[in-house]
Amino acid sequence: MRSEVFHNDVYRVIATRRDVRNGFLPEPLPENMVRRLLEAAHFAPSVGFMQPWNFILIRDLERRKKVREIFTRAREEEARIFTAERCRLYNSLKLEGIVKAPLNICVTCDTTRDGKTGLGRYHNPQMAVYSTVCAVQNLWLAARSENVGVGWVSIYREEQLRTVLNIPAHIEIVAYLCVGFVSSFYDQPELQKKGWCNRLSLEGLVFDECWPGQNP
Amino acid sequence: MRSEVFHNDVYRVIATRRDVRNGFLPEPLPENMVRRLLEAAHFAPSVGFMQPWNFILIRDLERRKKVREIFTRAREEEARIFTAERCRLYNSLKLEGIVKAPLNICVTCDTTRDGKTGLGRYHNPQMAVYSTVCAVQNLWLAARSENVGVGWVSIYREEQLRTVLNIPAHIEIVAYLCVGFVSSFYDQPELQKKGWCNRLSLEGLVFDECWPGQNP
Repeated sequence: MRSEVFHNDVYRVIATRRDVRNGFLPEPLPENMVRRLLEAAHFAPSVGFMQPWNFILIRDLERRKKVREIFTRAREEEARIFTAERCRLYNSLKLEGIVKAPLNICVTCDTTRDGKTGLGRYHNPQMAVYSTVCAVQNLWLAARSENVGVGWVSIYREEQLRTVLNIPAHIEIVAYLCVGFVSSFYDQPELQKKGWCNRLSLEGLVFDECWPGQNP
Repeated sequence: MRSEVFHNDVYRVIATRRDVRNGFLPEPLPENMVRRLLEAAHFAPSVGFMQPWNFILIRDLERRKKVREIFTRAREEEARIFTAERCRLYNSLKLEGIVKAPLNICVTCDTTRDGKTGLGRYHNPQMAVYSTVCAVQNLWLAARSENVGVGWVSIYREEQLRTVLNIPAHIEIVAYLCVGFVSSFYDQPELQKKGWCNRLSLEGLVFDECWPGQNP
């Protein structure tokens, strides 16, 4: 990937996918394109084939404005955790496209979909939510392959988003996505470009046989 | 996707990716291919660009046999949750390729990588683990694009796997993957083929504007 010559189109899309916050265009996505993106998500792996996901499509501007208010309040709270210098940088970053992107998608997980427990999650019940995250990543990559930008917003108080979207208590909110055509994609992650942090070296993240240290 | 004519290669790979348990071939993957798969994982999105993942590559047969023992014990426990009829079907399913696949990869998440908290996870700390799941899905799709099979094993007691792989207490185990060339890919999910359950209709999983029911 470092050579910018990609092994195939899947690698190219993986390497050029971005978490988009800037540059959303107002044109709505064609309905058949939205359908393709949702099908890609629905083809994600799921533990015990439980398919625990739902997709709420939010296009109404008033509702998106309410969601952005929730984001704005949470962002002010989050800003306080950083030192003064980091806080200045944090406040200069654009961290969502809720109103700019014409389509928002809330992806949820119904952990009760195939009963209280099911194949593959008796010991690890978090697998239901992990399956839903796989659906998000499928959608994200499918979108990039069509030059559609996606940004994942995670700065919100969950109970406030739940209220605005009428989500029942037993349903987990997994992702809130801003989706739309974009003027262009950054050539590297925006947080790297803006000096927040850099890509780590892969070498230091890979171990052979077990976690380094005293071998069990 | 239903027409079997795919919009592009990314959609084709998404639709034909399988959770592989049967048919792993013993040939080791070329090192440059393993490297490509790990790079694809490393290019996943991560909250605040924290890149919280590590990858433990397990090839040693003795260690894989220990992991399979952990799986086998957990599977016997999980079997007990099902009714007699479902239990018979459950026991007939192959649910892992730990020893057959030449490479196992344990994907972990260090939630402390960029400090106790970080951008985008003050309110939703689970975003670190979700980022790691995105890395798993990237690897899975990259593998499928190279006709390499991947199976995600989730039937194990976490503390037992932690011991065999020497994983420190502050590191979360997110996925245990079996990876290798395969004789063929099923044309539909194995659990569907074997009669465990069927793919849901996408239509019923998509909502407009909010969760149905009394509009807030």
